[in-house]
Amino acid sequence: MADPQVPETLEGWCLLHQVFRVRWDEWRALTAEDRAVAIDEAVASLSAMDRGEEGTTVLTTVLGHKGDLMLIHLRRDFEALQAAELSIAQLRLASHLETNTTFLSMVELGMYEMTAIIHARLRERGLAPDSSEFAQAFEAEMAEQRRRVAGRLFLEVPPGRYVCFYPMNKRRGEQVNWYHLPVEERLRLMRDHGKTGRRYAGRVTQVVSGAIGFDDWEWGVDLFADDPLVFKKLIYEMRFDEASALYAEFGPFYVGLRFHPCELPRFLQGDVPPPIPA
Amino acid sequence: MADPQVPETLEGWCLLHQVFRVRWDEWRALTAEDRAVAIDEAVASLSAMDRGEEGTTVLTTVLGHKGDLMLIHLRRDFEALQAAELSIAQLRLASHLETNTTFLSMVELGMYEMTAIIHARLRERGLAPDSSEFAQAFEAEMAEQRRRVAGRLFLEVPPGRYVCFYPMNKRRGEQVNWYHLPVEERLRLMRDHGKTGRRYAGRVTQVVSGAIGFDDWEWGVDLFADDPLVFKKLIYEMRFDEASALYAEFGPFYVGLRFHPCELPRFLQGDVPPPIPA
Amino acid sequence: MADPQVPETLEGWCLLHQVFRVRWDEWRALTAEDRAVAIDEAVASLSAMDRGEEGTTVLTTVLGHKGDLMLIHLRRDFEALQAAELSIAQLRLASHLETNTTFLSMVELGMYEMTAIIHARLRERGLAPDSSEFAQAFEAEMAEQRRRVAGRLFLEVPPGRYVCFYPMNKRRGEQVNWYHLPVEERLRLMRDHGKTGRRYAGRVTQVVSGAIGFDDWEWGVDLFADDPLVFKKLIYEMRFDEASALYAEFGPFYVGLRFHPCELPRFLQGDVPPPIPA
Amino acid sequence: MADPQVPETLEGWCLLHQVFRVRWDEWRALTAEDRAVAIDEAVASLSAMDRGEEGTTVLTTVLGHKGDLMLIHLRRDFEALQAAELSIAQLRLASHLETNTTFLSMVELGMYEMTAIIHARLRERGLAPDSSEFAQAFEAEMAEQRRRVAGRLFLEVPPGRYVCFYPMNKRRGEQVNWYHLPVEERLRLMRDHGKTGRRYAGRVTQVVSGAIGFDDWEWGVDLFADDPLVFKKLIYEMRFDEASALYAEFGPFYVGLRFHPCELPRFLQGDVPPPIPA
Amino acid sequence: MADPQVPETLEGWCLLHQVFRVRWDEWRALTAEDRAVAIDEAVASLSAMDRGEEGTTVLTTVLGHKGDLMLIHLRRDFEALQAAELSIAQLRLASHLETNTTFLSMVELGMYEMTAIIHARLRERGLAPDSSEFAQAFEAEMAEQRRRVAGRLFLEVPPGRYVCFYPMNKRRGEQVNWYHLPVEERLRLMRDHGKTGRRYAGRVTQVVSGAIGFDDWEWGVDLFADDPLVFKKLIYEMRFDEASALYAEFGPFYVGLRFHPCELPRFLQGDVPPPIPA
Repeated sequence: MADPQVPETLEGWCLLHQVFRVRWDEWRALTAEDRAVAIDEAVASLSAMDRGEEGTTVLTTVLGHKGDLMLIHLRRDFEALQAAELSIAQLRLASHLETNTTFLSMVELGMYEMTAIIHARLRERGLAPDSSEFAQAFEAEMAEQRRRVAGRLFLEVPPGRYVCFYPMNKRRGEQVNWYHLPVEERLRLMRDHGKTGRRYAGRVTQVVSGAIGFDDWEWGVDLFADDPLVFKKLIYEMRFDEASALYAEFGPFYVGLRFHPCELPRFLQGDVPPPIPA
Repeated sequence: MADPQVPETLEGWCLLHQVFRVRWDEWRALTAEDRAVAIDEAVASLSAMDRGEEGTTVLTTVLGHKGDLMLIHLRRDFEALQAAELSIAQLRLASHLETNTTFLSMVELGMYEMTAIIHARLRERGLAPDSSEFAQAFEAEMAEQRRRVAGRLFLEVPPGRYVCFYPMNKRRGEQVNWYHLPVEERLRLMRDHGKTGRRYAGRVTQVVSGAIGFDDWEWGVDLFADDPLVFKKLIYEMRFDEASALYAEFGPFYVGLRFHPCELPRFLQGDVPPPIPA
Repeated sequence: MADPQVPETLEGWCLLHQVFRVRWDEWRALTAEDRAVAIDEAVASLSAMDRGEEGTTVLTTVLGHKGDLMLIHLRRDFEALQAAELSIAQLRLASHLETNTTFLSMVELGMYEMTAIIHARLRERGLAPDSSEFAQAFEAEMAEQRRRVAGRLFLEVPPGRYVCFYPMNKRRGEQVNWYHLPVEERLRLMRDHGKTGRRYAGRVTQVVSGAIGFDDWEWGVDLFADDPLVFKKLIYEMRFDEASALYAEFGPFYVGLRFHPCELPRFLQGDVPPPIPA
Repeated sequence: MADPQVPETLEGWCLLHQVFRVRWDEWRALTAEDRAVAIDEAVASLSAMDRGEEGTTVLTTVLGHKGDLMLIHLRRDFEALQAAELSIAQLRLASHLETNTTFLSMVELGMYEMTAIIHARLRERGLAPDSSEFAQAFEAEMAEQRRRVAGRLFLEVPPGRYVCFYPMNKRRGEQVNWYHLPVEERLRLMRDHGKTGRRYAGRVTQVVSGAIGFDDWEWGVDLFADDPLVFKKLIYEMRFDEASALYAEFGPFYVGLRFHPCELPRFLQGDVPPPIPA
Repeated sequence: MADPQVPETLEGWCLLHQVFRVRWDEWRALTAEDRAVAIDEAVASLSAMDRGEEGTTVLTTVLGHKGDLMLIHLRRDFEALQAAELSIAQLRLASHLETNTTFLSMVELGMYEMTAIIHARLRERGLAPDSSEFAQAFEAEMAEQRRRVAGRLFLEVPPGRYVCFYPMNKRRGEQVNWYHLPVEERLRLMRDHGKTGRRYAGRVTQVVSGAIGFDDWEWGVDLFADDPLVFKKLIYEMRFDEASALYAEFGPFYVGLRFHPCELPRFLQGDVPPPIPA
């Protein structure tokens, strides 16, 4: 907690990404009536998942063989994520879906800069890092930060027709090991990394979520943009950042087009669902 | 045995983790009656597995695509684990489960500190490390330790709504190789590692089990907590420990909500089963 | 954007490669009439995908177990690729195809040489790299380049009976890391690499597409030739290039014989479809 | 042959390990009569495989999801192994088994020590290593060794309720490479490694088989013991040996309980089959 | 072409290895008549594949779970391989086979020694390496070599009851990288490697085929011998060669017993097919 080597993090939405393949041949083999019943049920269920402060569920297509449909559930806690997962599994439609992968995480703000600042500030106040005064003051500072960034922890789903999701790790190689760097070096690298991202402000929105202890990669990244070329430009440019060049390991990439639950029928007919109106 | 490079270990419960996916479409396609029969049989069987000193079986949901249901069998020996596995396989319900993975291990207390102390103590008594007196005295000391920590070897399942399970290895890289470190260095690293864990005392309970010679990772770790965020905080902080930063390799993570066998019917209806009352 | 470490790229066709296995036993089990209906529908759909400036779809067989049929969709944007993918999935024939893999990318021209030249030219004009004048002038230069190479960005599918497709990465090893090299070194390596390729001019045509942010490898390479031995000779020779020897990582290779959609019936009877007439 | 860098090996039984999963739901769905017929056929076939000098077949359960049943075929040659494999595949029971993995190898005694001794002895006799006299004398010495250790090459299956099987390699890393060590160094490491094993004499029996040129790992190891904890203790202790710490790579571990073919009916009812009477 | 760093290669037969599993339960469930029809068709088709100068198809069993049956197609070009693959897929028997893997390659003679000799010879004649005279003279020399070794490029299938097939790569590690060695060093290593092989002349025949640009490993190796122990001895001994010790990476191994197509009925009854008479 008070270990200055370990940057603080603040957590917001609990996230469950689900990537499904549609078993199109089975689906088409149903009677029109059976399909209609399954569609109505699914639209009703997914629409009801948009519950404001309690969270929502985003739908996207997925390009390529990794999936056809991706759901991103945003919820207040893991109980609610478990409920969402189980209720999807009970849909008639689910009998014709195959889960390719999922990702369990929490929206996370890394506080590299702020952790260093707070530590410095408390030391200036003469508090000993191991004292309970320090711990209390530290917790108070963090609570303050949490209030300050609440809007980014429990953010509205960003606009953008295209979504790109991928998981990643910081490298723990034998010579090149992020977790063995001094905190000052990590801070410097994160700062530079942030600059690249900021150059893309307005064209792409990034949501980082932490998955350590929850899933098999350390972080998930969701990008939202109106032009998918921006994903390529941003990630390519970042790949030359020292932080990414040396320390980033990337998992599989999932790219798709976002749409509203009420357009699910169109998608299940094999048409590209239209964008969500602005 | 008397090799001071090799820390002693003490073993307790034999553990078999089983992670299952429910084939929900098959399950829902059964008649209500068939489901009821299968549920009754499963509840009876799982409830009967809670047999005090002979062991018990823990049930959890699993978040994400890796599974829906995890069973953790604690037993006195491998015969009993084999019996548990075979009896689960014979359940009607098992026809609608798909085993995604399992993990075979024994609850283990690593005796780094204690091995060093005993070696020193016996040397002080003038016993030659290769003598049969040394071996006898050593075995007597270990038996004493075994009595002392019996409660941790055959522990009660810790409370906590959430369970996090993952396997891990100590790295055997070409330059960074745990098994090639001198025992003093390993002792120092384990000591530091332990400190991080102790800071989380009261918020999370950790059960380590050894799987060398039994399964494909060297250890399994089960964490029990009421708030899953604690898993993330603990594992993230530990990742900066020198022992973990340099030497830990992590397998897949399984996170779920623990529940009582009698709530299995609710789970199999697609509802989140309630916590076990305190 | 104005980071001289990051070479500019220009993008053309959006590409989706789809590799399918035919479930021959299922297919043969259909009645002759059902097969005829499915074939007619597929031929009509694939033929209609040849739409000039809007793109086209290439068909090839695939040798070996990785697939039987590969489709390469060239389109103006990802919406059109998604539409192509969904319309293939709705074909009757698709019920007897199994997607083994896909690859999502954009035809890409790497501008290593040109990026350096433009940077130099703008510096000579006295523009500060961070100024908006620089950015504007840079964008104007790139637009000019885009016009100049439009024919290579939105190229006609090259002739050639044989097609070889494979994805690749630039290595990001612990010691050998492309993304950590100075741009001058990368430029030199790319120049040498280009020379090897040019020696094969006339015998093979190469199309490189970028997949960073879209798929799990960084680039896709399509080679078109009349003699498959040329693939072996070219790729073997390149493997000794410093750029490839040290930095290239290769994914799976897919080799097949190109044919016209109207020859699909012959292929689905188990015969090798004839080449497209010149 | 006469290359003193390459230790001689002596080969005995040809081994095929087969690990099967039982498709329990299918199996239970059979009529009692069909099950009885399948069981009788399987018991008869497996019992007939115990043919003394021609070899035998060992049965074990398997703990965990990797399998339910393991067969270890010991035969005089690969023709006989192929016959055993094909005859198992023709059993009615085989329709309800799923082969998870197999391992093809030959019982092997590594002659590190002896190769060095013979080389020295022949050099003392003044024979030139490249001469045909040397080759002849060498072959005579090896034949003598073969006679001497025939009982270990064509050993009786060791007693022990528990069996642990795993494949392994010697590491061929970029810096740490067993096959690039001078033979003296390998000899020294193997000698130390042997000492650890000998400390477990009487509690565990080890059978090493070579698989280079036959299967995807270089060696297979079978351990037989009455207490599975011994597997853990032995393999853990060995992991600190220099030979293992630096050079051993381990494949998946399979642990089970050995039983007699005549107890197969009990196993197929879902009960733990009793041990083979001593 | 004229790059002296790149050794020339000469190519012969085009090869497609296919490894199949037999779905024995399905196969046995057919009526005797259906089996007979399928067998007759398969025997006729495979026998007709023995067409002298146009190529042939070798049949082997496969030991272990990787397959039951391996076909090795030797043909003049990839069109003919594609035709063979498609005609196998149309067999009634194919409905009961499952393709586990395939390998696409061309018989290849590496010309390390000869490339160096020709380069030296042409330089002595005073030809400049970049001149068209050099290129022409070089091509003439290679044509001569091609004639000289035609019998090894389009070889008769070697005798031998046992076949061992495996793919391999030359290592492209971060420190140990075959493709970054000077050609003289590679020549020296290949020469030494060749010596080991020659010591096994008469006991085993090796056929190397190149797969760069065609498949996921760089080379395939087929060994033919009457005693499978020779595979183990040869490959073990070679593993200590500097070329193999440092630079060889091995794929999966497939070992089986060769038989004549007319013995397919016996194999499909579950018997070991007899050897091809000498």
